Amino acid sequence: MQVVVNAAMSADGKLSSREREQIAISGPRDFDRVDALRADSDAVMVGVGTVLADDPSLTVDSERRRAERQARGDPADPARVVADSKLRTPPDAGVLSGAAETVLLAGADAPAERATRLETAGATVVRTGAEQTDLSAGLDALEDRGFDQVMVEGGGELIYSLFAAALVDRLSVYVGSLVIGGRDAPTLADGDGFRSDFPELRLDGVDQVDDGVLLEYTVE
Amino acid sequence: MQVVVNAAMSADGKLSSREREQIAISGPRDFDRVDALRADSDAVMVGVGTVLADDPSLTVDSERRRAERQARGDPADPARVVADSKLRTPPDAGVLSGAAETVLLAGADAPAERATRLETAGATVVRTGAEQTDLSAGLDALEDRGFDQVMVEGGGELIYSLFAAALVDRLSVYVGSLVIGGRDAPTLADGDGFRSDFPELRLDGVDQVDDGVLLEYTVE
Repeated sequence: MQVVVNAAMSADGKLSSREREQIAISGPRDFDRVDALRADSDAVMVGVGTVLADDPSLTVDSERRRAERQARGDPADPARVVADSKLRTPPDAGVLSGAAETVLLAGADAPAERATRLETAGATVVRTGAEQTDLSAGLDALEDRGFDQVMVEGGGELIYSLFAAALVDRLSVYVGSLVIGGRDAPTLADGDGFRSDFPELRLDGVDQVDDGVLLEYTVE
Repeated sequence: MQVVVNAAMSADGKLSSREREQIAISGPRDFDRVDALRADSDAVMVGVGTVLADDPSLTVDSERRRAERQARGDPADPARVVADSKLRTPPDAGVLSGAAETVLLAGADAPAERATRLETAGATVVRTGAEQTDLSAGLDALEDRGFDQVMVEGGGELIYSLFAAALVDRLSVYVGSLVIGGRDAPTLADGDGFRSDFPELRLDGVDQVDDGVLLEYTVE
């Protein structure tokens, strides 16, 4: 399975402001690239923090790409996956719109009544790990469902956790031409942070896109 | 006066680990570029946090560049400037080595006995603002001393404060090919962060340097 992390950050590494307000970091050409990457993926994954802050639907925008997916026997949209240890995803969240399959990767301790309510809303709940979702086991469960490429769209807590578990294969970073600032603003990789053995990347591509830069890396 | 911010960050926007340990983010070609930028500047400025964490000397490494500076009537090294509201710079800090002039931009409330001790150690103390250094007045004082180009080498608190006061003219960011992570790790621009009116940048240059990328911006 390939795990591809894709994120847009400011020139100072922030995904959004300290209030987690969404900010236009990239432009139309990058949105289109992200849409194509979604359409090429079997699942699009985010952390529950992103669901609570932004309520994305994570669906493919382009009708042509949706039709192409269906023509090859795939659903029009990739599955949505939420890393959601405590099952805090609201039953009316955008990721639970009828458009596509939704898998919630929960910890074993997540309340059963929330699981039932979310299953009623259409989600598939997969429990791995205990208090926290075991992401490695979670990705194995996704692979068992036939998912070969999982695209991760943030936030910084999930991205850090995936790097900490050595589960990331590729990283695409769009660097927007603005400064957001803030010691408490979400960054591309939050969590506890590495103290040594920093994950090393190999720079595969550098492209000017819109008024910023797209950096593409393979994780070494 | 031109204020040029130069910093090296990880692909996730961190200047160092959460313990503020220095990490090799760039390589020899970028070190050489930074040395050239220092040699082209009248002063090199950092925040007191950087002095306390890294104890840099901020001098020009290349003997050729030092000789060129002297040949045109400048001191071999640019002046060192520390934004140091409370005068916490230790009298034996690297920035107070005899090599070059050192200016400490302090707040009016900084203890007089610290000022005396630092002046004895060779520093020039300039007081602007009250509790916090008034950076705009501080840069005016540097301009009055004949400094036309000030290079700012961090850390993230100073860089944010300079952006917040609209004092930055150019920004160079070296993006190293590694992940540092950490919600508490220093980033390129910390401080309170912007909530709106985010400073906009114009991307002037993109170059692959060592195994990373150098992004050069003008502040709009």
